[in-house]
Amino acid sequence: MSLPLRKNITEMDGYVPGFQPDGPGWIKLNTNENPYPPSPKVVDAILTELGSDGANLRKYPDAASKEARQVAAELYGVDPSWVIMANGSDELLNNLIRAFVDPGEEIAYIHPSYSYYATLAEIQGAKIRTFGLTENFRIADFLECYAGKIFFLTSPNAPLGFGFTNDYIESLAQRCDGILVVDEAYVDFTDTTALELVKKYKNIVVTRTFSKSYSLAGMRLGLAVAHPEVITALDKIRDHYHLDRLALVAAVAALQDQDYLRSTVSRICSTRDWFSAELRQLGYRVNPSKTNYIFAEGSDHDGKRVYQALLSEKILVRYFSDPLLAHGIRISIGTREEMEKTLKVLQSLG
Amino acid sequence: MSLPLRKNITEMDGYVPGFQPDGPGWIKLNTNENPYPPSPKVVDAILTELGSDGANLRKYPDAASKEARQVAAELYGVDPSWVIMANGSDELLNNLIRAFVDPGEEIAYIHPSYSYYATLAEIQGAKIRTFGLTENFRIADFLECYAGKIFFLTSPNAPLGFGFTNDYIESLAQRCDGILVVDEAYVDFTDTTALELVKKYKNIVVTRTFSKSYSLAGMRLGLAVAHPEVITALDKIRDHYHLDRLALVAAVAALQDQDYLRSTVSRICSTRDWFSAELRQLGYRVNPSKTNYIFAEGSDHDGKRVYQALLSEKILVRYFSDPLLAHGIRISIGTREEMEKTLKVLQSLG
Repeated sequence: MSLPLRKNITEMDGYVPGFQPDGPGWIKLNTNENPYPPSPKVVDAILTELGSDGANLRKYPDAASKEARQVAAELYGVDPSWVIMANGSDELLNNLIRAFVDPGEEIAYIHPSYSYYATLAEIQGAKIRTFGLTENFRIADFLECYAGKIFFLTSPNAPLGFGFTNDYIESLAQRCDGILVVDEAYVDFTDTTALELVKKYKNIVVTRTFSKSYSLAGMRLGLAVAHPEVITALDKIRDHYHLDRLALVAAVAALQDQDYLRSTVSRICSTRDWFSAELRQLGYRVNPSKTNYIFAEGSDHDGKRVYQALLSEKILVRYFSDPLLAHGIRISIGTREEMEKTLKVLQSLG
Repeated sequence: MSLPLRKNITEMDGYVPGFQPDGPGWIKLNTNENPYPPSPKVVDAILTELGSDGANLRKYPDAASKEARQVAAELYGVDPSWVIMANGSDELLNNLIRAFVDPGEEIAYIHPSYSYYATLAEIQGAKIRTFGLTENFRIADFLECYAGKIFFLTSPNAPLGFGFTNDYIESLAQRCDGILVVDEAYVDFTDTTALELVKKYKNIVVTRTFSKSYSLAGMRLGLAVAHPEVITALDKIRDHYHLDRLALVAAVAALQDQDYLRSTVSRICSTRDWFSAELRQLGYRVNPSKTNYIFAEGSDHDGKRVYQALLSEKILVRYFSDPLLAHGIRISIGTREEMEKTLKVLQSLG
């Protein structure tokens, strides 16, 4: 018998996440992970919840993530009814589509940005529209009134690293009939956030991840700040126990240690700025970055060549075969030592 | 402005999970949690992954859950391509609907069983059909050929505790045009599983959870065994990093410690059988249970009265106001000591 799969599922390809090499000796600069461990308070919180015999694990977690929402709400100056926690911000992107987009309806995003939006739309059977970028990093040919159900704006942009101003984001919200999702995965590496706009525009949703600045990619944590009507819808759609007990206490501890966040972010930004300057010295064109990665283009515009040269030295960066990106590579910012090694290989490349 | 939410999302209610009391002193017999801690090997595995500084948590987990699938596949005697891991079996139920059911199409399940199937169908905009039970625990008025996209069979049944035979499940698979999901959340407490049938019927999917027998409700783990075509579809739909690093190592360690599983399950079953006999002595009608809970009915057929009497002693059991279930209560099996205390309260009730 043939299985009665939905047509959109049969026809779609799965998303392929960044390569994770096995074995030691790699310098891994391909998935924008944080090179430093998470806050020691995260480790303490996990150990406390685990206890000597893990007995807490036998019980269901708090389905409402009450404490984590409370802490996030205080941090962002909103009522907890404006906050939802998530199993990585990917869960939110997924559930936003399920909340707002019927099969056959449209979502849009900038290309290049995070292509997983397209995968999530395909799962829902939604249509996908992409907009390009102008020379000065605005959306090319955006409409006076965009009628699609969701526009996903990665801000700062991945993989190019630039940010959008709040004035610009505000103008987009006014031009969107549907929801404007501001995906702030990398926002802690810059000084602009659209959080304030959420209070003013009911159709703006800000999503955050703990995978980058909080150094918790391995714990799958994210959150969104949005109008309570949006949060209520997302609460209906999420699995009722979507976050495990150890992830929940990790989220609380991470949010509560803003000093640690600031100190690691500051180290990463300073390494980034030093590394960017060095690459420019070598003749690379490097976009000014508001994130924990840079997009760099060598004088021969051949990203693949640089990618492969680094790979042969067990330094893994991200190369995109997409014609809009193939001229450069995306390099996550690791420790100063890792970036010095990377620089040496690039210097020897000529 | 009003938000452009999908109609089915606006109209649906969210699922309300079992009540989790705050504070100490409760005997919690309302959500079928395991009264014993998880395997000590689970705790060891989590501690090892965490390390002294949590540095592993900065890195993304294995998106493919390769090791856990391998271990599960060996345990169940199938190729790893027949296995998928999940963030609780709820994630699988959700994604099975997304794989097979277009909005407007139908799913079905037995009422009473797990009402979360209905919530998941509502999120998808699917139609819901329920079938009742006959006196001898068969599906009442089942069709010669059921044309709906998925039939969810909770086996053993919750909250009534009886199991279905494989002969019966096989006959259902033959009568289902679509997928037959055998939700084996409680299967480790009985001796029948439909796993063998998966190899014979491409339309049978078996789902499992780690929340009950493995005592890991707090870690959100589940798995499914199904034909590789089903697994491939589910792999497209799941969030690519759906399981965190600590959950993944917990899953592997739990599956590898079958001795511990057998020993705690055996203690629970023996407490269950003793407690059931005692309740029958007291005049309760108790369904023979193949699970870690019993459904018990007092001589006045008033579940609410018994529920409230126990509640006033800080013993929490599950009462369902549904007319098909309001005559009794569902009591999860705790430790022998907890059940002795519960028995005493029931004895004093008369």
